[in-house]
Amino acid sequence: MGDYGRFLALLASALLVGFVSVILSLVWVFHYREGLSWDGGPAEFNWHPVLIITGFVFIQGIAIIVYRLPWTWKCSKLLMKFIHAGLNTIALILAIVSMVAVFEFHNAKNIPNMYSLHSWIGLAAVTFYSLQLFLGFAVFLLPFAPVYLRAVLMPIHVYSGLTIFATVIATALMGITEKLIFSLKNPAYSASPPEATLVNCLGLLLVVFGSLILWMASRPHWKRPREEHTEVLRPIGETPEGTEVESTMTHSSNADKSDLRINTEAARKQNLKFDDAGQRSTM
Amino acid sequence: MGDYGRFLALLASALLVGFVSVILSLVWVFHYREGLSWDGGPAEFNWHPVLIITGFVFIQGIAIIVYRLPWTWKCSKLLMKFIHAGLNTIALILAIVSMVAVFEFHNAKNIPNMYSLHSWIGLAAVTFYSLQLFLGFAVFLLPFAPVYLRAVLMPIHVYSGLTIFATVIATALMGITEKLIFSLKNPAYSASPPEATLVNCLGLLLVVFGSLILWMASRPHWKRPREEHTEVLRPIGETPEGTEVESTMTHSSNADKSDLRINTEAARKQNLKFDDAGQRSTM
Repeated sequence: MGDYGRFLALLASALLVGFVSVILSLVWVFHYREGLSWDGGPAEFNWHPVLIITGFVFIQGIAIIVYRLPWTWKCSKLLMKFIHAGLNTIALILAIVSMVAVFEFHNAKNIPNMYSLHSWIGLAAVTFYSLQLFLGFAVFLLPFAPVYLRAVLMPIHVYSGLTIFATVIATALMGITEKLIFSLKNPAYSASPPEATLVNCLGLLLVVFGSLILWMASRPHWKRPREEHTEVLRPIGETPEGTEVESTMTHSSNADKSDLRINTEAARKQNLKFDDAGQRSTM
Repeated sequence: MGDYGRFLALLASALLVGFVSVILSLVWVFHYREGLSWDGGPAEFNWHPVLIITGFVFIQGIAIIVYRLPWTWKCSKLLMKFIHAGLNTIALILAIVSMVAVFEFHNAKNIPNMYSLHSWIGLAAVTFYSLQLFLGFAVFLLPFAPVYLRAVLMPIHVYSGLTIFATVIATALMGITEKLIFSLKNPAYSASPPEATLVNCLGLLLVVFGSLILWMASRPHWKRPREEHTEVLRPIGETPEGTEVESTMTHSSNADKSDLRINTEAARKQNLKFDDAGQRSTM
């Protein structure tokens, strides 16, 4: 199996694991819990795990690797930035709605807010995620930031994105732990009822999903190739040289599937050549 | 502040945060809990958080970045591999002892073992960590593996190491959550007694420590420079070309501090040149 096939296999695995995670969260709340509604009761709380897993884990994971999908390399970089920013915005909105659900449930039941480590790290993750989205929009999407600033901030943007993503998964695991301890009473969590086993498996799948996304996002030879031909929405007053941030790929716009595969392999070989020295340290 | 100064500042921050985390774990068990002993009671359980934070988080974190300490670049690569493997072995032993403490405590109290998501992911982390250590020893420390195998496995070794490290921290956060819910009864965790605040802060520090280590471990320009002059313990029958895995640095063995700094800056500039293309995707 070639490099292209390996990427597709990993992508299919990540999509499958992410999709099954969302399904398991729905099975959890509909089969074992009170379902979903918006009434201040437990069924409102249940939006929290469903929306976090759907938005803050699954959609954020897809947003992270969207630049690496080879069939998007013929699309303009600007379009891909809009898709990346759009998916992250959807993830943020779902995360915020899911937090509102918890606060309303807590307030209706007179349960204190923000006392647990889960809530502390979760709120920090949402805050940093919002900041990341705002800065990403201001620096990389709008055409005002100078090239040197984009070049300086890009490694920080990538590191922050992956670290926040890992932190979100860790926070989800803490949340699962809390919810199972609080809600399983007879039988208790320690008696391993079917619900506990199902939700533990959901937690494992989240770790597998995160690991797959981090692997795909950190292989140098799978990144979108830099392109010298066309520049779009270049920072005002800047020359095209010195950064790949704004580049777009146009020469394969009419490519069929086999052309795409050939171009993909060629681009990856070019990446491999560029990244030979960097390969050792990439996570 | 130059690049060398930034590295030192980050290293000092990581050491400080890691050290304070270990201290806070001791304050937790001695000031708020039953202290430490080996009697099957709660004081035996308390070895679990103390040894996990000391060994599986702090010492593992140092083991990850040990190659990046500039003053070690004049030491042989083989010596650094022994230090890297040695620190990881210590971390593994402490993790295993800490697990024995929990199993003995559970058995003495008739609490089921291995029912929680924390225990599932924790056991998986220890298993993968042992495998990583064994494979690292067999492939990178012993002189039998061919160069191409080392080159193929090195990115996987680095990725696995960092992913296991992040998973260990996530598992520690789940463990903290469990322990605070189970042990804080009057007042409960939700009433935010001082113990809850202290241990929540400990959890936050673990995330900060992990983030610092991941940043330091993933900057291409802070990695140990490749060196063509001297090769030690080369795989049998292989030529020195084609890999940096076995290289060692000898030309600055008599360097004083200022020489080291100059050499360090030069080596980093060389790394930056090599890694220019790879910079964008490194985490």
